Amino acid sequence: MKLNFAKRMSSIKASEIREILKVTEQEDVISFAGGLPAPELFPIEEINEVNQIVLKEAGTKALQYTTTEGYAPLREWIAKRMNERLGTLLDKDNILITHGSQQGLDLSGKVFLDEGDVVLCESPTYLAAISAFKSYGCNFIEIPTDEHGMDMNILEDVLSHTGNIKLIYVIPTFQNPTGKTWNLERRRKLAELSAQYNVPVIEDNPYGELRFEGETLPSVKSFDAVGNILCTGSFSKIFCPGFRIGWIAGDKDIIRKYVLVKQGTDLQCNTIAQMVIAEYLKRYDIDKHIGKIVEVYRKRRDVAVKCIECYFPEGIKFTHPEGGLFTWIELPEGISARDILEKCLEKKIAFVPGGSFYPNENKENTFRINYSNMPEEKIKKGLQIIGEVIQEYIHEIK
Amino acid sequence: MKLNFAKRMSSIKASEIREILKVTEQEDVISFAGGLPAPELFPIEEINEVNQIVLKEAGTKALQYTTTEGYAPLREWIAKRMNERLGTLLDKDNILITHGSQQGLDLSGKVFLDEGDVVLCESPTYLAAISAFKSYGCNFIEIPTDEHGMDMNILEDVLSHTGNIKLIYVIPTFQNPTGKTWNLERRRKLAELSAQYNVPVIEDNPYGELRFEGETLPSVKSFDAVGNILCTGSFSKIFCPGFRIGWIAGDKDIIRKYVLVKQGTDLQCNTIAQMVIAEYLKRYDIDKHIGKIVEVYRKRRDVAVKCIECYFPEGIKFTHPEGGLFTWIELPEGISARDILEKCLEKKIAFVPGGSFYPNENKENTFRINYSNMPEEKIKKGLQIIGEVIQEYIHEIK
Repeated sequence: MKLNFAKRMSSIKASEIREILKVTEQEDVISFAGGLPAPELFPIEEINEVNQIVLKEAGTKALQYTTTEGYAPLREWIAKRMNERLGTLLDKDNILITHGSQQGLDLSGKVFLDEGDVVLCESPTYLAAISAFKSYGCNFIEIPTDEHGMDMNILEDVLSHTGNIKLIYVIPTFQNPTGKTWNLERRRKLAELSAQYNVPVIEDNPYGELRFEGETLPSVKSFDAVGNILCTGSFSKIFCPGFRIGWIAGDKDIIRKYVLVKQGTDLQCNTIAQMVIAEYLKRYDIDKHIGKIVEVYRKRRDVAVKCIECYFPEGIKFTHPEGGLFTWIELPEGISARDILEKCLEKKIAFVPGGSFYPNENKENTFRINYSNMPEEKIKKGLQIIGEVIQEYIHEIK
Repeated sequence: MKLNFAKRMSSIKASEIREILKVTEQEDVISFAGGLPAPELFPIEEINEVNQIVLKEAGTKALQYTTTEGYAPLREWIAKRMNERLGTLLDKDNILITHGSQQGLDLSGKVFLDEGDVVLCESPTYLAAISAFKSYGCNFIEIPTDEHGMDMNILEDVLSHTGNIKLIYVIPTFQNPTGKTWNLERRRKLAELSAQYNVPVIEDNPYGELRFEGETLPSVKSFDAVGNILCTGSFSKIFCPGFRIGWIAGDKDIIRKYVLVKQGTDLQCNTIAQMVIAEYLKRYDIDKHIGKIVEVYRKRRDVAVKCIECYFPEGIKFTHPEGGLFTWIELPEGISARDILEKCLEKKIAFVPGGSFYPNENKENTFRINYSNMPEEKIKKGLQIIGEVIQEYIHEIK
């Protein structure tokens, strides 16, 4: 006899990325598929040192339960950092520590979404945000996006004509999957529309610290006049993802609701991981460390962009990202990135086809390239092969 | 303008325990309120050593993303441990690593529960399980429990007469809050009824390793003929809770659904915490370590039981737990444990009144005593004062 699962289970599928990642576990595969940071840049020595200090000075505290909200000194640092860099006005009580920024999305679904509610998002958008929100039974309306961000006219039109919109989900800085960054005007406008239509915004920001060029822009949250905007962040890309420490920042009354929801979900995040990060931030210069990461990723971005220009056939569009981990390829209409992937996997090259990043439509002629996790020569070799496969494919179908 | 939260938010309240715990943060408070393990027993030295080994030998892996399922050697150890102690037949693919056993409950809600579904549970039951399941919009039916476990006749009656029952939630070993342990017959019968009525069981087992006397009993899962039973476990009480590492074990097809749900929830648990535990288990004798914990807690249980017998007025019932962290007090009818708590807090003594452990009814004349987190002299002093307060209270209302 089959068990009765919740209705949501019929729409929850295996993440295509996680499935492709399994293929890429073989050592000789060149993978542009994940969103993995470069492990050779993890501050292993420093973490080892700080770990010992924390265990020696406060071992019983570091291994015991702590508050759901998270370790206070870490929340203080996060609030200060956001205020300095992103133009917000926050203190520690605006911050809840979460299991990566991913958990901020899941908790947002739990706090805001009933079955049949509508979430507005960029088209395309982060695929694990789609799964996080979908598990609360919502529907998506995709808002078109150009090189400056979400189209604010279309957004306003949808906001004014659609019932039960509960959330607007955006990644305005070095977007996943496109690598695009919203300009200042769109950020301000989104905050205005959020207030006007009383719809909260989840501003997902796991990559914002990784800027290769240009000026850091204020967050959408910094234009929040009414307290409707929540902003995530993460130590995964600037420190290490293995700790699973991120956060969500917002109005204190809303964050208190998130805290209640997190209590029933998993009580709290890893205590010692929070204390180790806080101690590291006290003893070391995180900006210097981020500087190192940015330098490496910038070079890899440069190589990736150059190789795409060089090896890919004409008529292909791609993003020149100012930061973050990804660029986004648009093939000519009618070419399926899944077909290209199949041929590439035979040659031991992997990437994620773009279809999964659209909650409703599938634009099959797109794919995402991650450049943060491999040395330059591998990026070059891999993109050269992908370019050849695309050339051949176009030649064949002509 | 007020934001529109999800309907579930109207029923999610602050955990009474977490609120009382805030009061108990003052150093001179004697608290029987939490479920905290004794921090002086955490293997700090060993964790420090093993941490260094893991970072030295596999630092980049330990700090990077890993699979949602969790670290394979740890899942292998868990399966083997359960097979040896609890009579199951599992391998690593039956195990998903979770953020404590608490997350196993939340994921169970997500996998099984739609709004309006029914969860059957012991009366009383673990209060954070109530919040975890309630956030998926379910209703509860409480099944009465005696000193041998849940009443199987009433359970069968409810199963045969009630629609949309989706889960049976139980804590058969050293139950939270009552400290009671189900006998073998009830365990076997529950598995039979679960198969007969095709309703999955969540067997929550975070305390099972902490047995002070008597024989370890096979788990309900060990009688699972059809693959309907899921069983949680945790390193929080036998290693340390700060790592937030637990698990859920079950049929492989069901666990795959849990994995999909966890992907969207928070991707995975802390990588290095999983590797450190696995390395510790390889290098050290966990049974010896658990033996130390059991010895300390047994003495504390003995002191607690003796003090209740000695200082509490006649007509009070309480559990003599064979293991775990809690005993459960039933005051004479008409006496409110919340009133007693109020008077005790004035004298800087804290505990959790029983009302919160009932999803529907509030039996106000009950409360829970945790004895694991304090030295014996404090247990003695605290229970003496609670006894005096109850005596006075009974005298006053007469």
